[in-house]
Order: sequence, then C-alpha cells, then structure tokens
Amino acid sequence: MQPLRPTLTRFIASAFGSKAHRTASSTATNFSVQPQPKQQQPQQPQVPKAAVSRARLARHLELTWRQGSASHFPLTWLRDNCQCPQCYHPESKSRTVDWATCDVTIKPKDVQVSDDGKTVIVDWLDAHNSRFSAEWLHERRFEEDARKKWLSTYKQKKHIWGSAQEENFPRKRFNFSAVMSTDGGLLQWLLELEMRGVAILEGADSDESTVRKLAERVAFIRRTHYGEEFNVKSKSDPSNVAYTEQALQLHTDLPYYEYKPGVNMLHCLMQAQGEGGENQLVDSLRVAMQLKQNNPEAYKALTTVPIDWSDRGVEDGRPFQSLHRAPVICEDAEGNVVRVNYSQPQRDSHFSVPLEQVDGWYLALKEFTRLALSDENCVQYKTKPGEILSFDNLRILHGRSSYSPAVNQIYERHIVGAYLDWDEIRSRIRVLSQQEPTPLAH
Amino acid sequence: MQPLRPTLTRFIASAFGSKAHRTASSTATNFSVQPQPKQQQPQQPQVPKAAVSRARLARHLELTWRQGSASHFPLTWLRDNCQCPQCYHPESKSRTVDWATCDVTIKPKDVQVSDDGKTVIVDWLDAHNSRFSAEWLHERRFEEDARKKWLSTYKQKKHIWGSAQEENFPRKRFNFSAVMSTDGGLLQWLLELEMRGVAILEGADSDESTVRKLAERVAFIRRTHYGEEFNVKSKSDPSNVAYTEQALQLHTDLPYYEYKPGVNMLHCLMQAQGEGGENQLVDSLRVAMQLKQNNPEAYKALTTVPIDWSDRGVEDGRPFQSLHRAPVICEDAEGNVVRVNYSQPQRDSHFSVPLEQVDGWYLALKEFTRLALSDENCVQYKTKPGEILSFDNLRILHGRSSYSPAVNQIYERHIVGAYLDWDEIRSRIRVLSQQEPTPLAH
Repeated sequence: MQPLRPTLTRFIASAFGSKAHRTASSTATNFSVQPQPKQQQPQQPQVPKAAVSRARLARHLELTWRQGSASHFPLTWLRDNCQCPQCYHPESKSRTVDWATCDVTIKPKDVQVSDDGKTVIVDWLDAHNSRFSAEWLHERRFEEDARKKWLSTYKQKKHIWGSAQEENFPRKRFNFSAVMSTDGGLLQWLLELEMRGVAILEGADSDESTVRKLAERVAFIRRTHYGEEFNVKSKSDPSNVAYTEQALQLHTDLPYYEYKPGVNMLHCLMQAQGEGGENQLVDSLRVAMQLKQNNPEAYKALTTVPIDWSDRGVEDGRPFQSLHRAPVICEDAEGNVVRVNYSQPQRDSHFSVPLEQVDGWYLALKEFTRLALSDENCVQYKTKPGEILSFDNLRILHGRSSYSPAVNQIYERHIVGAYLDWDEIRSRIRVLSQQEPTPLAH
Repeated sequence: MQPLRPTLTRFIASAFGSKAHRTASSTATNFSVQPQPKQQQPQQPQVPKAAVSRARLARHLELTWRQGSASHFPLTWLRDNCQCPQCYHPESKSRTVDWATCDVTIKPKDVQVSDDGKTVIVDWLDAHNSRFSAEWLHERRFEEDARKKWLSTYKQKKHIWGSAQEENFPRKRFNFSAVMSTDGGLLQWLLELEMRGVAILEGADSDESTVRKLAERVAFIRRTHYGEEFNVKSKSDPSNVAYTEQALQLHTDLPYYEYKPGVNMLHCLMQAQGEGGENQLVDSLRVAMQLKQNNPEAYKALTTVPIDWSDRGVEDGRPFQSLHRAPVICEDAEGNVVRVNYSQPQRDSHFSVPLEQVDGWYLALKEFTRLALSDENCVQYKTKPGEILSFDNLRILHGRSSYSPAVNQIYERHIVGAYLDWDEIRSRIRVLSQQEPTPLAH
C-alpha cells in the first residue's frame, strides 16, 4: 500500500459529518468530521505521537495522523472490535460481540475525532457507539511495518548455526541462580533457547528436583507417558534405549507424539567418568537448508514421505503404544521448516507407503544423516555436573556416545530430564519482554 | 501394484542359491533358495497361514506365500529392520542399526526359507544374518490391504454428524462405573469420542476429583496455564469469559495454543436452576464440508487467512500472554480438516494480514457461523449433575446459553473441567484394542 501524502491538519467537515442516520457510502464518499481546533501555540508541543489529524470514510475508515501519513481501517474490523460494555468484557480482555446477530456489512452514521486527536468515536447504524484511542488504532494499523512489529512478539527469528559458529561451544552460558532469581536472566536464557535452539545453564544445585524448579520458573513440566521428570541412567529391562549405556544416535525425542514436547532440559547430576557420554548437537534447520539446496529430490522425499514413528512399552506398570505419522522434515504452508522428526529407535518397522517410495527415501535419509554428522554441522559437548543442557526438541538433533557402566553406584552417569512446551515458553517471553527494559533481540 | 500370480510351491534353487559371497544382482537375477520339503501329507494341514513358499531376489526380495500370492520387500528395508542383537534392542523394541555406517544399498549374498516356510533367513554382505518370521513380514507387506490394516490402528475414521443424526442426543451414553472398572467400557467410550467427537458419561460421583480420576483412567491431565482441573463457575474478576454467567458463543477452547488440548471433559456437579446453562454442540467437520461445497471462496478464506488467537491475563498470580497464528480451518497436506479454531473472545484485536484480506474473511466467518448455528448442525443439551460431557476440542464447537446467577452459593452452577491429549487417548485405544476381544469399530 502506498503511504498517502500528508494532508491538512485543518479539514472542513463535509456535509455528511453532522447528519445523523445517513448511511456512509461504501464507495467513495469523502466524509470528514471534526474540524481541528485552532492552534493556540505555533509548535503543537502537546500533541501526542499517535494522534489523528483527520478521519475520512470511504471503503474503509481513513485516518490521517498528525505526522502526515494515513492509515486505512476496515469498517467491519472496527465494529468487530467495539470496546463498549456490550461488545467487550474488560476483565477477561475478551470480545463478546455476538456473531449470530452482528451485521458484518454495518456502516457508521458518523465518525468524530476528539479535539486532542487522541480518540476516534464511531457512531454505528446499529445504535452502538465505539470509542477507539488513537494509540490503540495506531498499533493495529494494517501497514506492513505495524504488522511486523506485532509479529515480532509471536516467535523469535531463528539463528541457524553450524559448528564453525560454535567453536567455543556453547557460545553463551547462563547462570542458574541468575535465571532463577532475576527476570532479565530468565528472559535472556529463553530468548537464546528460541533463537539458537540450544543453551547451557551452569551452577545448578546437585539435586534431583532442580530441573522441576527450573521448569516451574518458566511455567510447568510438560508430562509424557514417561512421567514428569525422567531419570536417564542405565537400568535393567529398559523401556527406552536412552536407559542403557549404549550410544544414542542423533535423534529428536518423542517423534511419535503428534504434540511433541518443545524443549528438552537435561540436568547433569553425575557424568560418566573417563571416556564416553558426550552429547552431539546439530541444528537440523541448517542440515535441511543444505539438503534442499544440494539435493532437492532427497529434500522432497524427506518432506513428503510419511514415516510411522512409534514407541511401545510399559512405564510404571502401564502399557503404551504411541504412534504418529509424519515426514522427517515438516514444513508449514509457506515452506518453512517447523519440526524435524528423526530417530532410528523410534521409526517403526511398519513402513506404510507404496513400495516404490521406499528406496529413494532411504537414500535421502542417508544423505540427511551424512550432513548432520559432518564436522561442519555437529558439535560435541560433554556436560558437567551442575550444568543443564536445554534445547529445542522440534529442531535440534542430539545424540550421546556410549559410556562404560559404573563399577559402583557412586560414579554412575545420571541425568534428570524434563520437557517444556513452546506455548508456555513464548507466553513467558512475551510477559517478561514487557516487564524488562531489555528489548527483544533479533 | 498387481498381485503376482501363484507360483509353484516347489522351486528349484538357482545356481546362485548356495554360492556364498556372490553379490545379488540389483536388476533381475532370478535367485531362489531352499527347495520346499516334499509334502508328507496331501493336504498340508499344518502349514501356518503366513508361510512362505518361495523367495526370489530381484530389485526387491520377492516372497511367494503358500496361498499363492506374492509380496515384494525392499532390500534396504530388510537390512534396516535386521533383528539381530547388534541391530535391534529387544527390551526397548528399538532399532539400533547405526545409520552413520550402514550401507543403504547393501545386498544379501544368500536368502533361505526354513522348511516349514515360517522363517526367512537373509545372509548379508556385511556379515549380518537376519531372520524374519513369515508372519512378521506378512503383516508388513507393502500392498495396500496390509497398509490399510496397520493404519486402522493409527486414527479412527470420523463419523460426521448433524442434528438430524442426533435427534435423541446423545445417541450413546456411557456408564461412568463401567468406564472406570472395565477395559471394554473404557474402550467403547474412547472410540465414540474419537469417531463422533462427543460422548456423555452418566452416573459419576458428585465430587470435584471425579474428572481427575477419569483422566487418570485414560492417562493424565493435560495441563494448561489455567491449571489441571478448572472450575467453571461465576466469579468476580474473571480471567476468562467462561467464568461469568454470560452466554458463551460457539467456540473451541484454547485456540491460542499451538498445541491445543485435544479433548475437553466437563463434569456437571451442579446445573443452573431454571432457564439457561444449556450447551450447544456442533460438528465443525460438517460445517466445513458444507462451506467447501457451497461457498468455496469463503472456505478458502477460512483455510488460508491466519488469525491471531490470543489470551492475556493472570492465573494464580502468574501473568500469561498466549498467542497462536492459524486459520479457522486447518488442513493437512492432503486437504483433510485436522483442526478448527473458533472463538470470538480469543480472537485478538490485532488482525495481522494485508488490508485487502479483511472484508472477505469477515464475510466468510459470518457464513461459517450461520451454518454452525443452523438447526441442522447445532444440537442443544443441558447436562445434569452426575454427567460428564466429553468432546474433541480440535473438532467440536461448543457454546453455553446465559444463566441467572445463584441467589445463594448452594444452587450455583458448577462444572469441573479437565483436558486430555489425543496422543495419550490413541495410545490407550491401541493398548485396549489388543487386550479386548472387541474389534475396532469402523
């Protein structure tokens, strides 16, 4: 949309302005209201930044800001967002306009702008009277810059990384106490987690309840059929290969959940002594990007062939049979990668696709795996006791090298894990961003 | 794929059959193995249903079943699913083949079938030896009938309904005690919930903990920022319009969650005395279907224009700002409706799309609303104390008429609600379906 050229700050009311009950034309009636008050001071020192100088009704309500530019607001949207007590419930901040009876083609009979330009008053043909603050309208402009600003509070832009960007992995560390006790500390950790997908906290208590405290500092634990906190250590009769000393190939957790937990937090209480037990970490967004560029056919196979992700077992005496069908790389309608599923152990032996899709898919998976394991994509890090490794489970592939079982219990590798969901994390980021003076980093 | 014609049950081993270390051709070497034993009885009475009569290697392994038909299995898939202790971890039922080193173009040097036709033994060039039971392979055939059978355990087919099908709503009722105490009762309720999207349990205790017990009978409560159980009754300073006596327009709960809870359970402890407090229930799949047929333009607007669903407030002293952007009707890649978001109170006043999309979208929403509220789609039901109304929150629109506040606390309308997720419900259905003799209903 072209920005309209600045208009006069004094505008003579049209014949339409004061005639009650006349329908505003939906085509092009130039309809203005509220002559501006004569300026008492030459410099307009008290005019607020978001103040309207002129209102005009055509297909949309056109407001000209004191600064000169103009914005258009759809009439239906204005009626839909009437803030009167019949249409809006202020305690719950909720629209209550009844859509069974509301006329979506409704027109105003009159529009007024307050003397200071701070309020726009719309008098509707259905006897409603809506007052909108200029600031409120300014924030909700349909121009791209205003929409971008609002969307910046939706999800953080992701910073894609490879091992070259992680020479001193992890680039940033977060102090556990600062995260637990200051809003700024909490916000910075969560922003890093969303933008780069991985962050390490250090200085945590050596306590099995620490990861729960951390989750509850954000929101609450996202439970799965493995419970709330889960103890990752070698055990007999394991229901999951993570509960062995074996190496774990690169994977995402719980691909067999349609609603896969968003973030994995792994608190290291005791690390394997000697060799083994290192984590591998890979940004799958980078791998997907490389695959798409260099091998579009493989990329297509991994984004379109549905895989049967599954997990069967018994946990706490209760059997489970989880199953979710989805490609390895899941794109949204715009082709953005929104989730990666990758797990050898949890790919079912049922491969429920036509025979002719199978061989190509295996070749594509092999290529994806080769890229993920390449030195430029895969970083290694052995967490230390007191560290909490947190990462985006929709994005980051993680693995673990094998380790020797402890000779006695004292030196046994012991990780306590728990999940959080992005819905709760993003809610917390929004709340904290408004409290904290720190602007959202991009 | 054409079913192959029945082949001989006795087949002479080719020259290739017994030569170790010779590479199986990837093109068309007819390579058969293991001559069938001479039949001692004329009728083959002991031959198991899934038994192989012949194995042949070409691009894929071709197995001819004793009954005559043939199936093809990709070689890579067979190698990928080797069940030897190096490639498969039986306790966790997990594939452990290392994809960093595995050759996805691997060929066998030999294939054998056991005398009774019940086991296929593949001797690979990488020194692995895989044994597959004929029954295991038969279940995993790539033919459409086998794939359909497996997929029938994934999700239940949905039965779309309108009010004409619900004359005596609810068509089926479920006894709370039977659901709590018998696996058959639990399974039948969950199947109804998945297929028709709505089910009523009756005869529940009049206890605030009942809905928790029910959730834990299935799996566990899906928590949200409103907590685990939530009490729906009129309260002062409500963070949600549900916590008032006002009418609630048709809606789905929590559209502002990217991972929206799957099932809503509303336990009626006390119903409003006199007029009001009825639930409206609508199958949005039927509304979407009608809209698609009769007004494709409106359907397109509702499936493509992203809406900012939001919820802001404070619950238990903690502020939240939830936000999710998604269309009203969400389709999967095949155009199936997988989720509906619909809520006047929780549609944000920010409408973050280009101006020119707004008017058409409002007209489309109005038409969707008109269809949803039509007599043929909307059923009314006032739950009674002791009843639990359960429904699919991704599919069913629900509303509530306004009611008069209680004059004293004793007669106050009081509903206790909780959510479950489909991941857990479907897992439970699969487990129960294997325990129960009742086959899955379709």
